[in-house]
Amino acid sequence: MGDEFARIEWLKTRFELDDAPEGLVLGIGDDAAVFDFGNRPTIVTVDTQIEGAHFRRDWISPRDLGRKALAAAVSDIWAMGGVSCASIVALSLPSGMSEQDFHELVEGIAGAARTTGATVIGGNLSAGEHLSVTTTAFGWPKRSAVTRAGARPGDLVYVTGTLGAAALGLAILQAGRADLEYADRFVERWRRPPMNGRAAISMAEVATAAVDVSDGCVQDLAHLCAASGVGARVHADALPLARGHLETAEALGLDPRTLALAGGEDYELLFTAAPSSEAEAFAAEIGRITEGSEVEVVDADGRPLTLDRAGFRHFK
Amino acid sequence: MGDEFARIEWLKTRFELDDAPEGLVLGIGDDAAVFDFGNRPTIVTVDTQIEGAHFRRDWISPRDLGRKALAAAVSDIWAMGGVSCASIVALSLPSGMSEQDFHELVEGIAGAARTTGATVIGGNLSAGEHLSVTTTAFGWPKRSAVTRAGARPGDLVYVTGTLGAAALGLAILQAGRADLEYADRFVERWRRPPMNGRAAISMAEVATAAVDVSDGCVQDLAHLCAASGVGARVHADALPLARGHLETAEALGLDPRTLALAGGEDYELLFTAAPSSEAEAFAAEIGRITEGSEVEVVDADGRPLTLDRAGFRHFK
Repeated sequence: MGDEFARIEWLKTRFELDDAPEGLVLGIGDDAAVFDFGNRPTIVTVDTQIEGAHFRRDWISPRDLGRKALAAAVSDIWAMGGVSCASIVALSLPSGMSEQDFHELVEGIAGAARTTGATVIGGNLSAGEHLSVTTTAFGWPKRSAVTRAGARPGDLVYVTGTLGAAALGLAILQAGRADLEYADRFVERWRRPPMNGRAAISMAEVATAAVDVSDGCVQDLAHLCAASGVGARVHADALPLARGHLETAEALGLDPRTLALAGGEDYELLFTAAPSSEAEAFAAEIGRITEGSEVEVVDADGRPLTLDRAGFRHFK
Repeated sequence: MGDEFARIEWLKTRFELDDAPEGLVLGIGDDAAVFDFGNRPTIVTVDTQIEGAHFRRDWISPRDLGRKALAAAVSDIWAMGGVSCASIVALSLPSGMSEQDFHELVEGIAGAARTTGATVIGGNLSAGEHLSVTTTAFGWPKRSAVTRAGARPGDLVYVTGTLGAAALGLAILQAGRADLEYADRFVERWRRPPMNGRAAISMAEVATAAVDVSDGCVQDLAHLCAASGVGARVHADALPLARGHLETAEALGLDPRTLALAGGEDYELLFTAAPSSEAEAFAAEIGRITEGSEVEVVDADGRPLTLDRAGFRHFK
């Protein structure tokens, strides 16, 4: 990567165009960044998007990839009830990647950084066989951090947005079914995860526990329940679905319910809260926390559904 | 990666064995870690080690790779005159990687985290075609952060340890010359970078500017000079070389001087300081900061040496 230093210079200039975040003492261009987190706890997380494992380069533009990589990391900050304030981005770039694609990738990162407040304060460039973006994101808890461990029996389970739409988009790409009526909408949903910063602030006011839906609704809820030492009952018919979900799943020969329960990469917020009207303003109720340790999914009549476990891994 | 969650559980338990660092509010196992950096600036950096680009798996054990990945990131904290306090590790693991290799990798990271104080507070696991380790490291400046930008004409240039030894080790691996007398020593030097935490603390007391030698001495000094708006004159004969450097370079048909001036991955500290005896206690003087903007390398008689520019890239 002979132009590594030129690229770093460009990055330095590029991110100086954006406003320096509050607290930045020293930004891009030295061995490390220096950030004054002030006298409060800082939320820190990391997420990686790797070509071949998370995406194919013909499935997503460099710009959307940059946006998605940053959003996926910041999603963890939001799931802790935090406000994102900074990020550090490590890029592995294949030698054949054009300058234009590199610039597009960075513009996608920079745009998402502006939208989320997670200003890029540093990073690293490496040559690699595969394109990958590893994002470390920082945030401040709005109140105290919302962990996975605070859910109590009787709490309701809420989720923002819709479930299974990103998995449906990925399935469309995998099947090459751009011809389907709602194809663009679902593919876009996979390429461009939602930005739940506002919902996170509202959530921090009411949530007893929270997680983001990245591995699939039931899987992530199970993690929350395990951390809280509780169980949950989810109403399959209450799962919020995007318009076109049923028809599109059917056209692809996929079970619409499994998609919603087990599809990954929704990057929606799943949280628990005492019954109240506040959560309903920005999230849908999908179930209730129970004593015990199992996550049970029931139909409209309250009968337990047997989940297709294979489906749980299919979209990962 | 069907055993991702089992691995995360293991990691959680594994790192709970180590003492929680001062300031840790919430560690491994949630969406993100929460760290109270207290009321002082925090140094943050990221570094990636990628199979194929930085190493081959038959060249380095998983344990040494883990150690090296952490040390390479912390090296940037030290180069800022900082004391490392925490780290976050994102691993990309090939599907065929054995549990034993995974555990060895993590033990290498954990051991280096203990040695450096950069306790692992969080991370991420992904499946990937190639093994990679991306480490975000955090530190507190011992005094104020030592940047690349403070060097002044008349300052002396110092370096800790020896130069070119890691590049020589890599060259031995590339040439398959384990038969050479000093092969083990140099290969070990490439596999196990030095831990310069103590030198960093001493350095912070005297340095006007600093950088770590990761791209090669002259290259990294040039970055420091560019940031400081100065030039430098380096005495080729003053470069500290490991025992066996000359013979081993000769046996490989490499120029010993180019190795020392341009070899990467030494992870030594290069810094500038006003002439004084303090720096000499832990570092070797190799030159002087000048007015102007060029890094000039001279021989024992003060005659400029023409550098083999190709050599600068050869070991990257």
